[in-house]
Amino acid sequence: MTGATRTTTPRPARTRSWWGWGWADAHPDDAECVAMGALLPGTLARPLPVPRTADLRIGRPAVEAPRSLARTVTDDPAVRAAHAMGKAYRDVVRALRGRPGRIPDLVAHPADDREVADLLEWAGEHGVAVVPFGGGSSVSGGVEYRGDAHRAVLSLDLTAMDRVLEVDAAGRAARIQAGALGPALEDQLRPHGLTLRHFPQSFEFSTLGGWLATRAGGHYATGRTHIDDFVQSLRVVTPAGAGTSWRLPASGAGPSPDRLFLGSEGALGVITEAWMRVQERPRHKASAAVSFASFGAALEAVRAIAGSDLAPANCRLLDAGEAALAGASRDGSAVLVLGFESSDSPVEARLAQAVDLARAHGGREDGSRDGGPGNGGGPGGAPGAVDAWRSAFLRMPYLRDGLARMGAIAETFETAATWDRIPALIDAVRTEVGAAALKATGHPATVNCRLTHVYPDGAAPYFTVLAAGRPGDEVGVWDHLKEVAGEVLHRHRATITHHHAVGRDHRPGYDRQRPDPFALALRAAKGALDPHGILNPGVLID
Amino acid sequence: MTGATRTTTPRPARTRSWWGWGWADAHPDDAECVAMGALLPGTLARPLPVPRTADLRIGRPAVEAPRSLARTVTDDPAVRAAHAMGKAYRDVVRALRGRPGRIPDLVAHPADDREVADLLEWAGEHGVAVVPFGGGSSVSGGVEYRGDAHRAVLSLDLTAMDRVLEVDAAGRAARIQAGALGPALEDQLRPHGLTLRHFPQSFEFSTLGGWLATRAGGHYATGRTHIDDFVQSLRVVTPAGAGTSWRLPASGAGPSPDRLFLGSEGALGVITEAWMRVQERPRHKASAAVSFASFGAALEAVRAIAGSDLAPANCRLLDAGEAALAGASRDGSAVLVLGFESSDSPVEARLAQAVDLARAHGGREDGSRDGGPGNGGGPGGAPGAVDAWRSAFLRMPYLRDGLARMGAIAETFETAATWDRIPALIDAVRTEVGAAALKATGHPATVNCRLTHVYPDGAAPYFTVLAAGRPGDEVGVWDHLKEVAGEVLHRHRATITHHHAVGRDHRPGYDRQRPDPFALALRAAKGALDPHGILNPGVLID
Repeated sequence: MTGATRTTTPRPARTRSWWGWGWADAHPDDAECVAMGALLPGTLARPLPVPRTADLRIGRPAVEAPRSLARTVTDDPAVRAAHAMGKAYRDVVRALRGRPGRIPDLVAHPADDREVADLLEWAGEHGVAVVPFGGGSSVSGGVEYRGDAHRAVLSLDLTAMDRVLEVDAAGRAARIQAGALGPALEDQLRPHGLTLRHFPQSFEFSTLGGWLATRAGGHYATGRTHIDDFVQSLRVVTPAGAGTSWRLPASGAGPSPDRLFLGSEGALGVITEAWMRVQERPRHKASAAVSFASFGAALEAVRAIAGSDLAPANCRLLDAGEAALAGASRDGSAVLVLGFESSDSPVEARLAQAVDLARAHGGREDGSRDGGPGNGGGPGGAPGAVDAWRSAFLRMPYLRDGLARMGAIAETFETAATWDRIPALIDAVRTEVGAAALKATGHPATVNCRLTHVYPDGAAPYFTVLAAGRPGDEVGVWDHLKEVAGEVLHRHRATITHHHAVGRDHRPGYDRQRPDPFALALRAAKGALDPHGILNPGVLID
Repeated sequence: MTGATRTTTPRPARTRSWWGWGWADAHPDDAECVAMGALLPGTLARPLPVPRTADLRIGRPAVEAPRSLARTVTDDPAVRAAHAMGKAYRDVVRALRGRPGRIPDLVAHPADDREVADLLEWAGEHGVAVVPFGGGSSVSGGVEYRGDAHRAVLSLDLTAMDRVLEVDAAGRAARIQAGALGPALEDQLRPHGLTLRHFPQSFEFSTLGGWLATRAGGHYATGRTHIDDFVQSLRVVTPAGAGTSWRLPASGAGPSPDRLFLGSEGALGVITEAWMRVQERPRHKASAAVSFASFGAALEAVRAIAGSDLAPANCRLLDAGEAALAGASRDGSAVLVLGFESSDSPVEARLAQAVDLARAHGGREDGSRDGGPGNGGGPGGAPGAVDAWRSAFLRMPYLRDGLARMGAIAETFETAATWDRIPALIDAVRTEVGAAALKATGHPATVNCRLTHVYPDGAAPYFTVLAAGRPGDEVGVWDHLKEVAGEVLHRHRATITHHHAVGRDHRPGYDRQRPDPFALALRAAKGALDPHGILNPGVLID
């Protein structure tokens, strides 16, 4: 093991957007917004102005922090506004319309477990709701207080706890503080030749603690991609005390203590650090793109690949609309993006086998392979479709916010279901959400689908909805479409969320999906760990 | 999906031993017992007689089942005696010495969930403890009532619920009742070309429900081997109601409901069925054995293989003593048994890479490879060491019971720890348990070790202890040795159990290892689901 030495590469100072996704300087400008809006009939002629926190009426906090906690707590209005909501489309629109969620009274940036525990103790004594906050990228209302049952609201921002504290290189594990954002975490692992290899779309703007509390799905498409599988030990601070599970590669001693806190969304305790299983950086990579005239045939190809031993790192299937949106196809084909990685063995043979399986189901390989033998391809030589997909993937949330400024509906949601349900599920979401959007707005909507993660026994479809809004009532329209989608998911026994968490927005679906005995157990556990009911009230369970 | 058709191959009627492992007719006879005992100085001259249930004083049950449940409940003394204990060494010795654990008052064999629920309701009303019972192969006191806080004890034997109810071949999943023993379950999957691929040493004598309730480790040495990873959905009947989780390939909706019941050892509810992820049967196999003069070098080789992408199905390292005992080596070498499997791709290249890694750490390949190219090997052509290991593996528990009849100590226990702790941990167990045995019995003991499961971040050492007993006090000696072992494990932060469950025997270690917040949550969950405290009292939590 080596002690922690901070090795973060200095990054240029950039400003996070308080109201929209990511960096303030990465948002489309007014002209780009207008150009995008023109593609969707029925949107506004001019973009809504970028909102300013100075224009919000932010009152004095309802409570004051005790002097002992003054160092870690702020009542700065701009900081409070930036902690009022996550980054869902409905959050962005509420900010654009000057109606953000409840502004927290105070924001704390604790430096260690002791301060977290002190804050919880104070909050419990004073009836203050505590909303744990990592990167703030929740898209399901996970970091926003609703209701009025508490005297005040404290946003508990963990990002001051952002260090890799220990690295066990031989044992492939690292002890990492929960507030570390993706890039900071990888920067600190890189000098050891290691990586957590967890790259959600929100990577730059989300933290390890957020990933753990929401059971995040990684960028990788098969095998062990969920953050759950990479946890060796968790440290949790609760109002009823703190505890750390032992570092173990596996254990059969009772139900997994960590799995109760994974996905607990801040309702049972605050995850402050974890020993995570890390990996050597991949040295072998190869990727390819395959087109399919038929989406149904493409689904069969993906099922065959997911059921094989090939274990692609990337196996993303874009339907025709999604492929066109990403610039990966212009001829109405579905596109399958395949990628393989290994730290120790060449992967070209596995890629070739996967492409063969795709061809056997009617696929046609597009362009040349990246990293494959004989084409000299490297990271810079990616074929068009793969490259287009990668850039579009990271740019998407910014474009969503640009469309929101044009009064459009632009949002995504995801689910997962077993293979027997996938084709009908995707059809029903497209048809029913599309019909509801047409009815609500008077304009036809686009409902695209991609598979982000695939399993031998099922897949995770991810839907993009693009539609004109109903000026001034965009949130109402979206909430209605989401309700329609939730009904379809429930009817098809597809989970209300595959990796975006339950938060507050998915509560109706979650409450119906959760088995009754587990609801009883969860409620009892919450009562024992959070006797004053201060921890992220409203998520998961009441 | 296909409806269930029962396709079990008729098996010859054999009798299960009520007091010892497995089949009554597979136990060593008296002469074999004497021959084995002669290898351990200080054991008895003649074997203890095979105990008969007729010799036990079994009283009338303290309660009577209501007429509505009479069909499913028996008070037959022989059946009750066979449900009094599991199959740990200390259970076998207690039976041999005529002092078995508390004989349950009644044994129920429910046919469906309704009967399970009715039995729980009746037990709750009458203060009757309910001990769920699958194959009865617990080696940690998991199926035995201790204490006297309840009016009576009901053993809830699930083995009448032994059907594969549905198979989704395209989606690689099967709905299986919890009472299905390993062979019955595989017999019903085989016509579909599928397998659960879960082969613990107790495979013939343990059930799906037992595996789930104890988080069983499979026979396979790397990757997804724990039963936990193969669960798609669970059905659980609790005193507070029943529930079924949705069939999902993955979900991020709250903490996993299934993971709370996996490992719950009957204390939170009765698992009655599960949708399990099944696999195509492997068509490609290859195996090899590699010898090492140094155990430390062998550990490094195994760590390198476990950290690679190779994913061997078998990667068992036997120390010199264990290799000699299994007949896999006679020259004091440690032996690494490597095996690879795939349903869709040849595996010889992966085997060759693994053998190369082993050679790079000083290993020497023994004999020819099984299934490899150029040697014509098939399932019947296994090399000596691999073959010897396989036979010895299944025979071991019978030999243990033969040694128990000679008054010897013969038992195993297992753990898991991160790689940084493995060498010192194994040394300490060997030294301290060996010294304690010498002190307690006056005779030197054998303490062998093998690694049964290996991970990129650690390994699961499995210890075998062979020693003379202290005639009449074998249980006392073993309990003392286990306490010494438990202290070593705790000092080295190695789990009290990797795949043998907590039961009642491992409670002291488990109670110290379990994080406090999880203890609070577990106790609260137990109170909510089992308000009368009737479910397997004494395991996991009080």
